[in-house]
Amino acid sequence: MTDLPRRLTAEAVGTAILVATVVGSGIMADRLSDDVAVSLLGNTIPTGAILFVLITILGPISGAHLNPVVTMVFALRKEFEASAVLPYVLAQILGGVVGALIAHVMFELPVLQISETVRTGSAQWTAEAVATFGLLLTILGGLRFKADAIPMLVGLYITAAYWFTASTSFANPAVAIARSLTNTFAGIRPIDLTGFILAQIAGALVAAAIAAWLFAESRNEIPPIVPEGTERP
Amino acid sequence: MTDLPRRLTAEAVGTAILVATVVGSGIMADRLSDDVAVSLLGNTIPTGAILFVLITILGPISGAHLNPVVTMVFALRKEFEASAVLPYVLAQILGGVVGALIAHVMFELPVLQISETVRTGSAQWTAEAVATFGLLLTILGGLRFKADAIPMLVGLYITAAYWFTASTSFANPAVAIARSLTNTFAGIRPIDLTGFILAQIAGALVAAAIAAWLFAESRNEIPPIVPEGTERP
Amino acid sequence: MTDLPRRLTAEAVGTAILVATVVGSGIMADRLSDDVAVSLLGNTIPTGAILFVLITILGPISGAHLNPVVTMVFALRKEFEASAVLPYVLAQILGGVVGALIAHVMFELPVLQISETVRTGSAQWTAEAVATFGLLLTILGGLRFKADAIPMLVGLYITAAYWFTASTSFANPAVAIARSLTNTFAGIRPIDLTGFILAQIAGALVAAAIAAWLFAESRNEIPPIVPEGTERP
Amino acid sequence: MTDLPRRLTAEAVGTAILVATVVGSGIMADRLSDDVAVSLLGNTIPTGAILFVLITILGPISGAHLNPVVTMVFALRKEFEASAVLPYVLAQILGGVVGALIAHVMFELPVLQISETVRTGSAQWTAEAVATFGLLLTILGGLRFKADAIPMLVGLYITAAYWFTASTSFANPAVAIARSLTNTFAGIRPIDLTGFILAQIAGALVAAAIAAWLFAESRNEIPPIVPEGTERP
Repeated sequence: MTDLPRRLTAEAVGTAILVATVVGSGIMADRLSDDVAVSLLGNTIPTGAILFVLITILGPISGAHLNPVVTMVFALRKEFEASAVLPYVLAQILGGVVGALIAHVMFELPVLQISETVRTGSAQWTAEAVATFGLLLTILGGLRFKADAIPMLVGLYITAAYWFTASTSFANPAVAIARSLTNTFAGIRPIDLTGFILAQIAGALVAAAIAAWLFAESRNEIPPIVPEGTERP
Repeated sequence: MTDLPRRLTAEAVGTAILVATVVGSGIMADRLSDDVAVSLLGNTIPTGAILFVLITILGPISGAHLNPVVTMVFALRKEFEASAVLPYVLAQILGGVVGALIAHVMFELPVLQISETVRTGSAQWTAEAVATFGLLLTILGGLRFKADAIPMLVGLYITAAYWFTASTSFANPAVAIARSLTNTFAGIRPIDLTGFILAQIAGALVAAAIAAWLFAESRNEIPPIVPEGTERP
Repeated sequence: MTDLPRRLTAEAVGTAILVATVVGSGIMADRLSDDVAVSLLGNTIPTGAILFVLITILGPISGAHLNPVVTMVFALRKEFEASAVLPYVLAQILGGVVGALIAHVMFELPVLQISETVRTGSAQWTAEAVATFGLLLTILGGLRFKADAIPMLVGLYITAAYWFTASTSFANPAVAIARSLTNTFAGIRPIDLTGFILAQIAGALVAAAIAAWLFAESRNEIPPIVPEGTERP
Repeated sequence: MTDLPRRLTAEAVGTAILVATVVGSGIMADRLSDDVAVSLLGNTIPTGAILFVLITILGPISGAHLNPVVTMVFALRKEFEASAVLPYVLAQILGGVVGALIAHVMFELPVLQISETVRTGSAQWTAEAVATFGLLLTILGGLRFKADAIPMLVGLYITAAYWFTASTSFANPAVAIARSLTNTFAGIRPIDLTGFILAQIAGALVAAAIAAWLFAESRNEIPPIVPEGTERP
């Protein structure tokens, strides 16, 4: 088991790079194109790509949750120590905020911003719940059957979810908070965070409940091999 | 062997997420761009990506057919029990329809719709037959030689088939039925379903016949290792 | 060793699907967009994707050359029986031509066409030589060090080569001949074939010469494991 | 251990193909589209794809650094012999320059060019430092935990970094020097090289320092298996 300071550093650095990618590629894509679908492609492909990288290189250290609802679900499943939940979540939020600020510096924008992008209403909340449901189902199914494919699974799931959910799939409270601090392509008004985060938690809990039954191990099965760092006891 | 309720749940949930992705990304892409090729890219990439995810996490439970003609071909090859064919097909259709409705809710569209998109004529039917022929050849060849690459094979095959077939490659009766219930980018008129489904069945049968010869095992070969859930007895 | 009829069928079917993808996605992309770069993306992504599929499912049967210069280089390296060269090349050309005709049927175009697209001159020939040089270097290096990555290597190499060579990287005489029979996005005038094919052969021979030295096995090395069907004796 | 002439050839040929891809796809994309984001997609996807290919086929020969700061960091970590640093860097620069010239020949442009594209200022330098920091973190984390995923990791990291860094992520002094010799999409003024290269070295050193702690091996761990050619003693 890696020590806690290194695990928290991995979560913070990973979430920072993730948010810098989401916000930075959004700024780049938005500047370069008048076609919003082209901009979304330029936002989607880098996000999926960096998730593969981050989960591969940081997963063995901290599990590479990079997402408070992922940490929460692992804790509920008793696969993650309760005492580390709060430190993980704080590291994720802190990292995410720093990532947004770094993106602003790189693109010569005011470092401190507040988003004015309205993202609210029941359709958006449904979309966030669906997006987070799918993300957790992907992670829990992947851990159950093919743990070494998790980086590819999460990268490709988010690639799809950017497009099939009306909210472009935030699916991550730490990333959502960080995105409230950028008034660019990827932003969300701070006042809209509550609805998004509640929807994300709801989607994650439903996924955890279904996964507990759907991915349960049969009695006469060989247990899957769990790689270092996936945090199953 | 997983029990039937879980297998049917996997088929229904998987087809729901697949159709939500096809329909949802179609709506998103169509809204955001005036360039239809850009919209098709925004429809293609998510569909290929989600297929990789769904087959990886659901394959070990139900085989992740998510497609009545796949179930049909496995049954004809005696690799799938005949008694489960009808339940599988019904679960796929039900899941697909629910997936279309969820997409409508997320994008604030009327939940119940009937497509008005004309997709008929011998060129379209040829395209569907070719698309489904290729899909089954891909699956049967993959199962024969590299079963753990099936999620990637199907994801990439459909990525290609969206573009090289004039019909954008439905290649799936359950998905086609679900798509008749959305009057958006990915729709098809209910009256055009019969031609599409017959063409899909024809393409699948030709593929099964060719594969039975082309992928036959030589006598002095070691049989390939078949992973849990691929439903070969 | 698979019998010759099945190997030739694999080469013909594979080249047919490859050309149907190249020509069909070109027609689709060209129809849907006014932006030629978007059309080229819609031509590139399906081509790379289908190459991964075809080489994975047909490689174990015939080697999945799908390309006369690949067959030629393997024969020169004594890794392929000389007597099968001509049958392979004829199967590839026949398959490629059928693939172009199928694409025309699917898109409701005249079945028999002659391309009028001019592709000639020293810059184009240099591009084809470079493209084919890179393709053979990729295949020979892949076979030497990581044979099970060949489908991904070839798919991604061609994805890159569509863009970095001025000729969009035909790199395949059988595909070039088939493409002379379509007066669409992917076409080439029959009169320009000679220059392309000579450049392709030249690029392949240079790659074979460099690879013989660069990828030579050191004396104290364990020979790489060669999977069934890669045609090394 | 491969002999030095073959290692240097691998570095030179690899960097030549890499730069030919970066410059060539930039020219192609820029010619074909008026939408700069579409052009950047047409520049990004080929670059990520060719990196996967080059690192897979050349990694076992020379390590496939293709980048002076990568060579520098390995030497600082005592994982690469100091005497080979200068030959490697020269081979990389020479190969890169040749790659730019080949791109010009293929696209019928003047062979010798000097870029006039301004890329300077603290935001660009920050972006280059961040880009190179991320590249080295990716490589060192990959080597530590999943060495056989390095080709995919680097390809996808650069795919992301083209978009999230304001400088489109050169992250490579040899490639930067080569790009100063093309007055096309991918160019950079020679006078701006110093700032870029210093920022790249700074980012690489910070990554090396953090990685030395973050990816340190725990005492009670099994050391990871290192494949041939990754240059760890």
